[in-house]
Amino acid sequence: MSNHHLPEHFTRTTPSGDTLERDVCDKCGFVHYRNPKVVAGSVVHHDGRILLCRRAINPRKGFWTVPAGFMELEETVSEAAIREAREEACANIIIDRVLAVYSIPRISQVQIMHVARLKEPAIAPGEESLEVELFDWEDIPWNELAFPSVRWALDQFRQVVDRDDFPAFTNPPGESGDMI
Amino acid sequence: MSNHHLPEHFTRTTPSGDTLERDVCDKCGFVHYRNPKVVAGSVVHHDGRILLCRRAINPRKGFWTVPAGFMELEETVSEAAIREAREEACANIIIDRVLAVYSIPRISQVQIMHVARLKEPAIAPGEESLEVELFDWEDIPWNELAFPSVRWALDQFRQVVDRDDFPAFTNPPGESGDMI
Repeated sequence: MSNHHLPEHFTRTTPSGDTLERDVCDKCGFVHYRNPKVVAGSVVHHDGRILLCRRAINPRKGFWTVPAGFMELEETVSEAAIREAREEACANIIIDRVLAVYSIPRISQVQIMHVARLKEPAIAPGEESLEVELFDWEDIPWNELAFPSVRWALDQFRQVVDRDDFPAFTNPPGESGDMI
Repeated sequence: MSNHHLPEHFTRTTPSGDTLERDVCDKCGFVHYRNPKVVAGSVVHHDGRILLCRRAINPRKGFWTVPAGFMELEETVSEAAIREAREEACANIIIDRVLAVYSIPRISQVQIMHVARLKEPAIAPGEESLEVELFDWEDIPWNELAFPSVRWALDQFRQVVDRDDFPAFTNPPGESGDMI
């Protein structure tokens, strides 16, 4: 998902009845409200291995991620996670539960990660992936993961891999999700 | 939070390179991307009682809710839940864990509810509340709750009230969150 820059004829100002500055169109007064965006994704496992996708698009092209992406309007969180696995890995997944709710405040993102499994073993790279692969734990390319939250989700999944009853994780202590 | 209607000079069309219809300004080509909005809130308990706020604003003015509201940019989910409790109930709360992740797809909302407790017992109605009150379970005004998800959160909190280790809930089976 690319950034969407505002035209220059939007000005930062506080609309009447509001308490925060917003971007307002100089020409028609349209207020461009912005809100945090939700990413829905999954740690997808199959026969003890974990599905990762190597990104074909920026940011972090060439690096590995779990299937995840921005929710569209009128979706549920799990519908979005299922759609992303289909789009990125041609994978048909079953969502089992919420793994984690992460906040990346610098970029105004909320990420909702699930534990999921493959309904059928077939996977293939979608348009946004260079390749997709089921990794044994010891073969995960830790130094080539796309985002901090991919590592968090994998680590936290590993902690609860044999449990079907665990509380949702949040950011690991002290981690904001910023790229270093 | 009110609805923000688009000016009439926005037209539904699919921008080049996109796959879905968006609202595009006829005058300058600005694409108004919209995404699901995140509501952050909490079931706040104190001495076995539960904090509810009677809404001073629409929608559902006069009905009772848990403190909850739309996340702002550059917040974490728990910062937003803490802010909403302060704004709506002048309450200083401590977030203990994620209670639930709800999807209300018809209105493109994701609601993230927490279990929280009062840091200090003082509460008072904020600008968006007519009154605030700590209710014993049997005194909760079930027929005057503002939204289906308020009932879900209270019911699910009740199921895990003595546990500090439970999986995050989602929508109750078959419930979309639509008002009946």
